[in-house]
Amino acid sequence: MKKLGTFFLKATKGLAIKEVVSINGQIDSKAAISVFDRGFLYGDSVYEVTLTYNKIPFLLDEHLDRLYRSARSIHMEFSFSREELIKDINNVIEKLEGDRQYIRVIVTRGAGEINLDPSAATKNNLVIIGRNLPEYPISWYEKGVSMIITDILRNSKRSMDPGVKSGNYLNNVLAMAEAKEKKAFDAIMLNYKGNITEGTTSNIWIVEGSRFVTPPLDAGLLGGITRKTLLLIASKNNLSVSEENISPERLKAADECFLTSSTKEIVPIISVDDCPIGTGTPGPHTKSLHKIYKKFVQESLKK
Amino acid sequence: MKKLGTFFLKATKGLAIKEVVSINGQIDSKAAISVFDRGFLYGDSVYEVTLTYNKIPFLLDEHLDRLYRSARSIHMEFSFSREELIKDINNVIEKLEGDRQYIRVIVTRGAGEINLDPSAATKNNLVIIGRNLPEYPISWYEKGVSMIITDILRNSKRSMDPGVKSGNYLNNVLAMAEAKEKKAFDAIMLNYKGNITEGTTSNIWIVEGSRFVTPPLDAGLLGGITRKTLLLIASKNNLSVSEENISPERLKAADECFLTSSTKEIVPIISVDDCPIGTGTPGPHTKSLHKIYKKFVQESLKK
Repeated sequence: MKKLGTFFLKATKGLAIKEVVSINGQIDSKAAISVFDRGFLYGDSVYEVTLTYNKIPFLLDEHLDRLYRSARSIHMEFSFSREELIKDINNVIEKLEGDRQYIRVIVTRGAGEINLDPSAATKNNLVIIGRNLPEYPISWYEKGVSMIITDILRNSKRSMDPGVKSGNYLNNVLAMAEAKEKKAFDAIMLNYKGNITEGTTSNIWIVEGSRFVTPPLDAGLLGGITRKTLLLIASKNNLSVSEENISPERLKAADECFLTSSTKEIVPIISVDDCPIGTGTPGPHTKSLHKIYKKFVQESLKK
Repeated sequence: MKKLGTFFLKATKGLAIKEVVSINGQIDSKAAISVFDRGFLYGDSVYEVTLTYNKIPFLLDEHLDRLYRSARSIHMEFSFSREELIKDINNVIEKLEGDRQYIRVIVTRGAGEINLDPSAATKNNLVIIGRNLPEYPISWYEKGVSMIITDILRNSKRSMDPGVKSGNYLNNVLAMAEAKEKKAFDAIMLNYKGNITEGTTSNIWIVEGSRFVTPPLDAGLLGGITRKTLLLIASKNNLSVSEENISPERLKAADECFLTSSTKEIVPIISVDDCPIGTGTPGPHTKSLHKIYKKFVQESLKK
């Protein structure tokens, strides 16, 4: 799907619908938004991405809770109810074919006078993008991926809190650009103290012996839903798990390393800045945790 | 003009056209952009705002130079020439009635796969918004305005350089929201060292005795075109002018204070955090500099 921007709701010639966009509750074949929308002008928006399994948006409540938290952090109120939001999401999922869907929910502060003052806009724009998501390359999981640590520091909590999932992602875009230039899968970003925060759209974990460690929220990162889920299910499975600050040196000396995200689940990291992690292959604890996670997903879907 | 977002190119019933939007060289009555545009998804865009005097965009070359610098900083190339860009800007200015126009030029990285990797998009979207700009309230200039210093720190140069005029403005939106909540005109933002950087869309100056002082670029701020112009013309007029770090205490102890911007020119600041600056009225050096600036504008237009 290369030609985007003007094409969506692709259902030509009997092909499955691969993309559906809903704007303010209406399936919108133009998938366009006013240039006066503050999401476009300033990145004045919040968003969530969830993955469906068997057409069921996984941990939707958790994602919506975070969406509302993000909105509160930037003093944004929603001009629609949570029930309306869920209805619109389900409408997009229904319209799309395929069990495995990428669902992006974007809420902007709306359009208004061109003026930073948030009160210039009064009515949100709610954009839901649904797309069929092909399975990610199996090599990511079987062979692992290589990362870099970028010099671009993650936004500080005192400026633009990374805990807010907002439309201001240029910080991460630049980190990703550096990773791609260096032929890496993604970049790991540090905070002002020099500790690991997160990947550009993922959380980072290490394994030391049989102990799982991930940076604490106050390192300045997005509290990932998969991160939170793993902290819970690891404990339930009597795995040793802890939130601790991780320096780049500690990360590079770890036995295993991996990233987590709602869409990618658990991806082994086998090298950082060309330095192999552990054996330089996906580690047994990483694989084992991924199995536990997949089992948890399947059990959750049965409920 | 309250009803935005779906209304533009307003030329009904013989009224003057108050708003014109051009997208990729075409006057676009829909003024809408794809939700897959990276400007909308990530704030992955750069922009400039210039004011026209007598329908002439003031210091356009300086603004375009800065637009290209901003783009280079985020590794964005333009899929159009500078000549085409100028032609499109002039087209918008011609279509709009009125001598005093607000011209906003936005260049996004374009639409593409939903993926932080900038290479996902290959063709920019160029959006030019032109609007009639009524004169600002005379009270701003005659009575001065009140500011706050916000606890929200300006993004650091090491994360998201404020010297890049990008679509990531939520940091400033939040500062402005705090200012409005406290009934102030705008907020002054500090850097990590606790020194003044800038207002949310302006540069900040103080006067000590007869000496003009503004923070240096490396404090982490946007190099304003009006700021640069004033540094030049102040020197030419044998005024003492200097770029120095300014702490909040120094600012509050100054004899005069003012802000500068391309659209607002020079606005006296008479109090900060409810602390009067100098006499608590617009100062003589501020007024005098504004006269010199206005004279410079008029002389530039004659050339």
